[in-house]
Amino acid sequence: MKFGTFDDQNREYVITRPDTPLPWINYLGCEAYFGIISNTAGGYSFYQDPRLRRITRYRYNNVPMDMGGRYIYLRDNTSGEFWSPSWQPTRKPLDEYTCRHGQGYSIISSSLKGVFASTRYFVPMGENLEVWQLTVRNDRGEALDLSVFSSIEFCLWDALDDSSNFQRNFSTGQVEVEDGVIYHKTEYRERRNHFAYFACSAEVAGFDTQREAFLGAYRGWDSPQVVEAGQCSNSIAYGWSPVGVHQVNVTLQPGEERQVIFLLGYHENPADDKFDPPGSQTINKRAVKTVIRRYLQAEEADRAFAVLKTYWGELLDRFQVETPDEHTNRMVNIWNAYQNMITFNMSRSASYFESGIGRGMGYRDSNQDLLGFVHMVPERARERILDLAATQMASGGAYHQYQQLTKRGNDAVGSNFNDDPLWLVLAVSAYIKETGDWSILDAMVPYDNQPGSETPLYEHLQRSVRYTVERKGPHGLPLIGRADWNDCLNLNCFSSEPGQSFQTTTNKEGKVAESVFIAGLFAVAGREMAELAAARGNSAEARELISQVEEMEAVVYQHGWDGAWFRRAYDDFGRPIGSAQNEEGQIFIEPQGMCIMGGLGLDDGKAEQALKSVGERLATMHGIVLQQPAYSQYYLHLGEISSYPPGYKENAGIFCHTNPWIMIAETLVGHGDQAHDYYLRINPSRREEISEVHRGEPYVYSQMIAGRDAATHGEAKNSWLTGTAAWNYVAITQYILGIQPTLKGLKVAPVIPAAWKGFKSTRLYRGVTYQIEVERKGPGNLTRLWVNGQAVEGNVVPLPETGVKDVQVKVELA
Amino acid sequence: MKFGTFDDQNREYVITRPDTPLPWINYLGCEAYFGIISNTAGGYSFYQDPRLRRITRYRYNNVPMDMGGRYIYLRDNTSGEFWSPSWQPTRKPLDEYTCRHGQGYSIISSSLKGVFASTRYFVPMGENLEVWQLTVRNDRGEALDLSVFSSIEFCLWDALDDSSNFQRNFSTGQVEVEDGVIYHKTEYRERRNHFAYFACSAEVAGFDTQREAFLGAYRGWDSPQVVEAGQCSNSIAYGWSPVGVHQVNVTLQPGEERQVIFLLGYHENPADDKFDPPGSQTINKRAVKTVIRRYLQAEEADRAFAVLKTYWGELLDRFQVETPDEHTNRMVNIWNAYQNMITFNMSRSASYFESGIGRGMGYRDSNQDLLGFVHMVPERARERILDLAATQMASGGAYHQYQQLTKRGNDAVGSNFNDDPLWLVLAVSAYIKETGDWSILDAMVPYDNQPGSETPLYEHLQRSVRYTVERKGPHGLPLIGRADWNDCLNLNCFSSEPGQSFQTTTNKEGKVAESVFIAGLFAVAGREMAELAAARGNSAEARELISQVEEMEAVVYQHGWDGAWFRRAYDDFGRPIGSAQNEEGQIFIEPQGMCIMGGLGLDDGKAEQALKSVGERLATMHGIVLQQPAYSQYYLHLGEISSYPPGYKENAGIFCHTNPWIMIAETLVGHGDQAHDYYLRINPSRREEISEVHRGEPYVYSQMIAGRDAATHGEAKNSWLTGTAAWNYVAITQYILGIQPTLKGLKVAPVIPAAWKGFKSTRLYRGVTYQIEVERKGPGNLTRLWVNGQAVEGNVVPLPETGVKDVQVKVELA
Repeated sequence: MKFGTFDDQNREYVITRPDTPLPWINYLGCEAYFGIISNTAGGYSFYQDPRLRRITRYRYNNVPMDMGGRYIYLRDNTSGEFWSPSWQPTRKPLDEYTCRHGQGYSIISSSLKGVFASTRYFVPMGENLEVWQLTVRNDRGEALDLSVFSSIEFCLWDALDDSSNFQRNFSTGQVEVEDGVIYHKTEYRERRNHFAYFACSAEVAGFDTQREAFLGAYRGWDSPQVVEAGQCSNSIAYGWSPVGVHQVNVTLQPGEERQVIFLLGYHENPADDKFDPPGSQTINKRAVKTVIRRYLQAEEADRAFAVLKTYWGELLDRFQVETPDEHTNRMVNIWNAYQNMITFNMSRSASYFESGIGRGMGYRDSNQDLLGFVHMVPERARERILDLAATQMASGGAYHQYQQLTKRGNDAVGSNFNDDPLWLVLAVSAYIKETGDWSILDAMVPYDNQPGSETPLYEHLQRSVRYTVERKGPHGLPLIGRADWNDCLNLNCFSSEPGQSFQTTTNKEGKVAESVFIAGLFAVAGREMAELAAARGNSAEARELISQVEEMEAVVYQHGWDGAWFRRAYDDFGRPIGSAQNEEGQIFIEPQGMCIMGGLGLDDGKAEQALKSVGERLATMHGIVLQQPAYSQYYLHLGEISSYPPGYKENAGIFCHTNPWIMIAETLVGHGDQAHDYYLRINPSRREEISEVHRGEPYVYSQMIAGRDAATHGEAKNSWLTGTAAWNYVAITQYILGIQPTLKGLKVAPVIPAAWKGFKSTRLYRGVTYQIEVERKGPGNLTRLWVNGQAVEGNVVPLPETGVKDVQVKVELA
Repeated sequence: MKFGTFDDQNREYVITRPDTPLPWINYLGCEAYFGIISNTAGGYSFYQDPRLRRITRYRYNNVPMDMGGRYIYLRDNTSGEFWSPSWQPTRKPLDEYTCRHGQGYSIISSSLKGVFASTRYFVPMGENLEVWQLTVRNDRGEALDLSVFSSIEFCLWDALDDSSNFQRNFSTGQVEVEDGVIYHKTEYRERRNHFAYFACSAEVAGFDTQREAFLGAYRGWDSPQVVEAGQCSNSIAYGWSPVGVHQVNVTLQPGEERQVIFLLGYHENPADDKFDPPGSQTINKRAVKTVIRRYLQAEEADRAFAVLKTYWGELLDRFQVETPDEHTNRMVNIWNAYQNMITFNMSRSASYFESGIGRGMGYRDSNQDLLGFVHMVPERARERILDLAATQMASGGAYHQYQQLTKRGNDAVGSNFNDDPLWLVLAVSAYIKETGDWSILDAMVPYDNQPGSETPLYEHLQRSVRYTVERKGPHGLPLIGRADWNDCLNLNCFSSEPGQSFQTTTNKEGKVAESVFIAGLFAVAGREMAELAAARGNSAEARELISQVEEMEAVVYQHGWDGAWFRRAYDDFGRPIGSAQNEEGQIFIEPQGMCIMGGLGLDDGKAEQALKSVGERLATMHGIVLQQPAYSQYYLHLGEISSYPPGYKENAGIFCHTNPWIMIAETLVGHGDQAHDYYLRINPSRREEISEVHRGEPYVYSQMIAGRDAATHGEAKNSWLTGTAAWNYVAITQYILGIQPTLKGLKVAPVIPAAWKGFKSTRLYRGVTYQIEVERKGPGNLTRLWVNGQAVEGNVVPLPETGVKDVQVKVELA
C-alpha cells in the first residue's frame, strides 16, 4: 500500500494522503538554520545546535502523533468553519491533499470546499530564517471572506531545560510586538544576545503571543478559541508559553488568489549592541528589519527558492545514473545522495527519532557518513576530517563523540571504542581518492585539541593503525575495548544495574575480549594506508603495513574462521561469539562483510562460503538480519545487544548499515545479481509499495528494519540519520555500478545483474565530467574500457590533462 | 471568582467545575508509591524516585494543558456516545461534576444523561499500588448498556531517557497480558527486576497495550478509536508506546449501580527469582497475584481507604485550632499541615511545576521543611536530620543538594552556599523542642558519608556555627558564598554565557561579597545553639556563642543598617545591596525578617522602623514583594535575581517563603493585627474568592505570587513544593497563635488581632494532649496562664508528670 508517489522529474516525493503510518519528514536548511518538517507541517526549527538553540517547541512521542509545528489555519468567516490546509492539527478531512518533499523544502497543498491553499516552506541560502510562502485561491463561484492564522510555539532556547525546569521557565517568557512582527526574547534581558522573530507580509488584523490566550484553557491546537471566534486577542506573553500567531483577513473574488508570506527567523546581535536605544530593554532590530523587509516580498522569496533549487540541483547533478531499475536510479540520483547530505548536516542530532538533546557527533559515524557526501562537498569534508582528527588522542585512540559547537571530545563518553581510529583512515583515503588533494596529509592537526600537540594528519593515520597493532588479545586479534562498530556488543562491561550505560560502565580490564570485526576493518584500513604510503613514495612503510595486514589475516584464518563463516569476537572468558559453538548468536553479519571487504577469503573460497552462510542464515525478504539465532535473554557478558527484544535493533534486527557490506562482498566475489537483490530488499523506494509494513519514509533509509524474530517483521525505525545512507551509496555506486574513485583516476568496474543490458552515468570527478556508458555483451563482470573512443588497459580511466572538462567513457561487460 | 468550596468537615476541597485556571492537583501515596493527580484525573505515578522509577508517562507543559493521566471512558453502547467522567480527556460537557481532594486521595464524580460515575483514587498504606474505585450508577428510567474503558500510558521507567532516547526506546517496549491483567515489563528482560501491572476487578471484554492500536493513528486521548468503536483490539505492544487499557461491559437496570476496581501497581522481584518458570522470559507473578486479588475486592479497598483516612486524621489531629477566622482554621487544621507532609514526602521533586527529573533534596530546603512536619512525624524527622547531617562536610559546609536514593551529596552542584549549615541548627533545635529527645545530639554521624568520620551530631552543629564565624568578609559580615537563602542573588558569579548555572559558575574568589541575611540567620542559630549548650550544662560555650552573636549584631548595626531598614548584602566590589544608595533593589525583605527574628533592633526601634519600611515599600494587597524597585535589567554582579522580568520570582515577586518571616517579626514587636493581615494576604483559602487572579490551588501555598511590577500581579506559580508551607505554619501557629514548643515545655504567647475574642486549640506535644483556650481580656499581648486551673508564672506550660495524658491550658490576653 502506498501513501504517495515519486516525482523523479522534480526530484520530489509526493505524499497524497496525510495520514501516513508515521510522520514522513523532511529537512529545511543546509547551513546554520535548520528544521524538520513532517508531511502535515509538524516539526521544529533550531539554529546550529538542536539542544541549545531550539527556536520552536516540539513534543516528541506526542499524542496525537506529531502534534506541534508550523501551522496555518483558514477560517471561512461566512460559515465560521475553520481548518488546517496541512490537515494537522485540525485533522478536518480535506477534498484534496498533497505534500511535496524536495531537497531542503516542502510544499503542502490542499483544497477544501473550493478553497485552495499551498504553503512552500524553505530556508533561503545564507539566511537564518525560514519562509512560509502561502498561496490561497478562491475556486468557488462566489466571493470568499477568509481569515488566515499562522501559529508557532516558541521554545525557551535550551530544549532540555525547556522541558524540565518549569519553576523557572514559566516566569521568564517575554516577547515584543512591533509593526505586526512578533519578537521572542526570553532571556534576552540577561545573557542571551539572540532572539527569534515571526513576521507576516500582509497587514495584520491581530496577533497573539500567549499560548492560552490563543488556544483557550484546556484546548488543543486542533481547536484554538481564537480561530473558532475569528479574532486574535492581541495577547502579550508574560511567562508561561509564548507563541507567535498572526491573523490576516483576506477577501477573494472567484478565481482570485493571494500570497501571504510568513517568516520565522533567528538573529544574534553583538553583545554590546543588544538594545535600541542603548540602556533600554528593547531589542535592537535594525539588522533584522532589512532582512524581514526583503523576504516578505514574493519576488525575493521566489528568487531565494530558485537559488536553493539550483544549489541542490548542482550537488545532485555531480553523480547521476540511468539504469534499468527505477529504484536504483531515484535513490542514487536523488534521495540517497540527499540523505547523505542530511547526515552531513545533522549527524545524529535531530530527526523524528533523534530528539536533538542527546548525542554529540560520533567519531565513527562521522567518518563513515563522509563516504557518502565527499563527492558533493569536498571542501567541507576536508574540514570535517580535520575536526575529527583534532579530537583524536595522542595514543591514536579517539573520543567516541565530540560536540559540534565546541569541537571538543565528550569526556562523559570517553574513548576506547577500539574500532574508532581506523575509520579515520577510510575517510581520509576516500577524500584523497575523490579530490586528489594530497595536501590534507600535511595539514597540522592537534591531539585532543591541545595547542602545541600538532602533527601532520598523516601521523594521525599512522597512530590510528598503530592503535590496533598495539592492542591485541590472547589470540592475536584486536582487543575490542568498550565496543567496536556494534555499540551494543559490550564484552568488557558486565552491567547489572538498570540505567547504567552499557558502553561507559566498563568494569573489566579489557585484556581478553577480541573483535574479528576490527581485524577485518584493520585489513581494509591497512591496505588503504599502504596504498597511501606507496603513493607517497614510502614503499618500506607500505610493505610493513601489508605485512601487518597479512599477519592479522593469518590470525583471522586461525582463530576467526568458524568453518562456514567468520566469527564475531571472543568474550571476556576467551570463548567465541558468532560461532556454531554458541547456542544463540551463532553467526553475525558484520565480520562477513568487513573481512571480505578486507580481502579475506577471496582466494580460498572462504568468502563465498561465508556469503552462502549469510544467505542461508541471515537473509530475509526485508533485508539481512544482524545475527542469528536472536538472543532470547539478557547475557551479562554480552551487554546491550541482548537487552533488546528479539528481532529489534542489534538483537537480530535488520540493521541496515551492515547490509551494504554484504552487497560489496558479493560484488567482490562477482555476484552482481545477489548484490543487487540485497540492495533492493532494503531500498526504500522498492519498499514503497509495502508502506503499511515498512511504515517509514519510502524515500530514505532507516537505521533498522525489524527482523524475522520480531512481531513486526519489516517495520522500519530510526529513519534519516544513519550510516546506512553512506554505505548503501558506496555499495551501489562504487561496487555494483562500480564507479569508484581511486588514487589514479576513476575506476569503472561494474558487477551488475546479469539481466541488465547496461547503464549510463554522469559523474563529476576532480572537476571533470565523465559521461559513462556501460554495455553488457556477456553475462560476466569482465570489462573492456574505452576513453574518448580510445581503448584503455585495465578499468581505471586515466586522469585527463589539465583543462579537459569532459571525458567519454565506454565500458563493455562480458 | 471561585471554582469550588472547602468542605472543612470532611477535610476536602471540592472543585465544582473542571476547567480550573490551572490543573489543581493533589498527591497520592505517602510511603514509597506516589502520584500526582489533577482535578480532571491528569498526572502520573512513580515509585520512590520520580525520575528513575516513573510508572506512567506524563507530558509537562502539554497542549491541551494537563493532558495525560488516569483516564476512564464511559460509552453508552446504545447511542455510541462516549465521555470521560473526569471531563478530561474528552472534555465533553458534564451535567454535574465534582472533584474532592482529600489527604492522599481524590474522588472525581460526575453525571451525564443519567449516568453517574464516581472514581476514588488512593494508595493503600503499606502497598506499592494505587486503587481506582469506580462506581457507576444508572439514574435513567431505562436499562443502560455501558462499556467502561480504563487507560494509562506506561513510562519506560527513566523519565528523562523516556523523553529523549527514542532510537532505543521505540524498540524496547514489552508487556504481558494474563487473566486480564496487563503487565508492563520493558527492560525486565535485562537489568530491571521491577515491573508495573494494571488489573481490573471485572471480567474483561478486551484490552489494549499498544497506544496507536487504542487511539488510532493521529488521534488523541480525547477520541480513541477503540472507544469510539466500542471494542478493544487486544493489541500486544512491541516497542513504541505500551499502554494499559481494559474494557468492561456493564448492563445496569434503572437505579442499579456497579463497582469496578482498577489497580495500578509496581513490584520488584528478587534478582534471582525474576522469571517463572526459571529460565523463561515470563515474569514471576506469584507475589503480586495475591496483592492484586486482595485489592480487587471492594471490601478490602474500602478497608484500606478507611486506614488511610485514619492515618491522615491522626496526623492532623495533633494540632487543631478554632479561631474566629475560617481561613486560619482550615489552613492550620488541614491544608497547611497536609502541605507540610507533602514537602516532607516530595521535597522539590514532583508537582505540576517540578518535573521530577531535576533537583535532588535541598539541604536548606529540607531543614526548613522539617519545621512544618516535625510535630507530625518526629521519628521520620529524626531520620531526615541524620541523613542531612551525613552530607555535611568536615569543614561544616554542606552539599547544597543530595540524592534521596543514595543519600550522597550532589557533586555537580557542590557546596559553598554559606547559609546552608546554619539551617541544620534550626532543624535540630526544633526537633528537640518538639520531642525532648536530647539523644539525637549524641548520635554518631559521618561527614560526606565517609565511614570513619563520624562525630556526635552536636559537633556537626558546632561546625555549622563555626563555618560562619570563620568566613567573614571585609566588614565583618558573613561571606555570602555562591548564594545565601536567595539562590538567585549570585554575587560571586559573573555569568555572561546563556545556559551557565548562575550558582555553580563561580568565578570570583568570594572574599568580598557579604550577606546581612546570613548575619541575621547567625543570630537566630547562634541563640538556638546557646540555648542547647546551656541546657546541656555547658555555660561557657553558651556564653561564647552569645558573645559571637553580639559581635555579629554590632557589625550589622554598623554596616548592615541602612537608616530605615537592614541592608541585604555587600557585592564583590564592597558596595551595599538593598540600600537607599542603590537605584534598584533598595530594600529587600529577607534581612528585615531574619535580623528581627535574630533579635536585632527589638530594643532600639530599628525593628519597628524596618517593618514600617517593609509596609511602605514592599507590601501589596497580594503579599510582600521580595525587593524594590525591581531590577529593570540584568546586572552581571547580581546574577539570576536580575534575570527575571520585573515582578516575577526573586526579582520583586511575592516570594511567599519570606512573608512569614515578616509576620514573625511583626509579632516580635507586638503587632498582632499587622502580622495576621500579612498572613491573610497570601493565605490560599483567603485568596480562593479571587481564583481567577490567583489561578493556583486555593488550598495550598505557592512559592511565588507575581509582584506589583508584573503584568499578572497576584498570579500564583509553583504551588505545593515550597518552604512557604513550613514557615507559614510556624508563623501562624508558633508566633501569631503563639503555641510554641520550647526546651522546657509548651509556650503559649499569642500575638493575635485585637478584634479576636480569643481562640481554642488542641495540641499533642510529647505524648500529652494540651487543650488550650485563649481569651482576650484586653487589647494587648500580655498573658496570664492557668494550667489545669492553677495559675502559673510566665507563659510556658511546665511539662507534666509522666503518665499524664491531658492538660488544660487557659490563657488570658490583655
